[in-house]
Amino acid sequence: MAGNSILLAAVSVLSACQQSYFALQVARARLKYKITPPAVFGSPEFERIFRAQQNCVEYYPIFMITLWMAGWYFHQVFAACLGLVYIYARHQFFWGYSEAAKKRITGFRLSLGILALLTILGTLGIANSFLDEYLDLNVAKKLRHF
Amino acid sequence: MAGNSILLAAVSVLSACQQSYFALQVARARLKYKITPPAVFGSPEFERIFRAQQNCVEYYPIFMITLWMAGWYFHQVFAACLGLVYIYARHQFFWGYSEAAKKRITGFRLSLGILALLTILGTLGIANSFLDEYLDLNVAKKLRHF
Amino acid sequence: MAGNSILLAAVSVLSACQQSYFALQVARARLKYKITPPAVFGSPEFERIFRAQQNCVEYYPIFMITLWMAGWYFHQVFAACLGLVYIYARHQFFWGYSEAAKKRITGFRLSLGILALLTILGTLGIANSFLDEYLDLNVAKKLRHF
Repeated sequence: MAGNSILLAAVSVLSACQQSYFALQVARARLKYKITPPAVFGSPEFERIFRAQQNCVEYYPIFMITLWMAGWYFHQVFAACLGLVYIYARHQFFWGYSEAAKKRITGFRLSLGILALLTILGTLGIANSFLDEYLDLNVAKKLRHF
Repeated sequence: MAGNSILLAAVSVLSACQQSYFALQVARARLKYKITPPAVFGSPEFERIFRAQQNCVEYYPIFMITLWMAGWYFHQVFAACLGLVYIYARHQFFWGYSEAAKKRITGFRLSLGILALLTILGTLGIANSFLDEYLDLNVAKKLRHF
Repeated sequence: MAGNSILLAAVSVLSACQQSYFALQVARARLKYKITPPAVFGSPEFERIFRAQQNCVEYYPIFMITLWMAGWYFHQVFAACLGLVYIYARHQFFWGYSEAAKKRITGFRLSLGILALLTILGTLGIANSFLDEYLDLNVAKKLRHF
């Protein structure tokens, strides 16, 4: 268990650090633009940083689920590499969005692409394990046989 | 590991797709009601769709945790079936809410009921494993013995 | 798998209950301060409770990931105890925030400290497993040898 998830674990902890870092940036922006809690409006700069972080929060559980499923059922190293690209895409998205709303798009599209890929890999891996376990039919092995 | 979680994995990937789909609906509603980011207010229709998605985001990690705990410690097939009902309840909630605030209630109550059930099953399963491991007392086996 | 995660599972289900409880408090505050959905503004008391819950939602996946990684790769019992302190810190934060914005700080700092500790422990554990598996170098064993 611990052995065959270690790269996924490393990517997960790294992305958790990134999420904390984004939350910290919102706290800093609160001080900079003088937005006292519980307010979340009042300055377009703050609102952009806040929305950027909120968007990352929304997608974080989806990323974690698809990362682990693709890693467990498809291929750990491949999923972990995609996870690193996702972290980079979110970095680009966050800093782009904090500058201007239009600059968020490149990073956002990349992050969506990675999520789609992880979902497809996870689905393929799960389908293969399912056929293998319930119908005794290992597609991956048969393909290798060809 | 991979074998005895496969149905949970399938339900998780399906629900991750649903969450992405809800996020996509918010993006579509932004275009339709002309709400440019980072704004999240300005049209009651958009606000309802946005709040519906936000509510799904809030409950998603709770759902994932209780699904996996109930599946691992109580019964995988039963937990996965409840997970499917939860996905259906969230579908009903989201589209109900996007039509009118009142129409969200049926789906919301169903989703809360499923979460409560998953929590109870998870707790029972964990309590049983705990007694079994630390006090060498397997309640489930004894009940079957009766 | 089920055996060596049981305390983490118990803490996770407990914290899922806490998250549901916070969501319920927001619903109650809606009724009390007459904020009809989808609105989330209009009363400073409601806004504080709402932001308190939102903040807990934002940090919940980070907490789950760091808890499980620290528990799997460092030490289960230690991580579970830190998890209980985190739940207590979030309790303090939520009720502090719902009274006054300033009263949120004590609980918030404690919760951040716990998250930082869990992250460090998880990172150490993962690094150790990594060295052990890929470089055949078990640091923890060597330290014990000294």
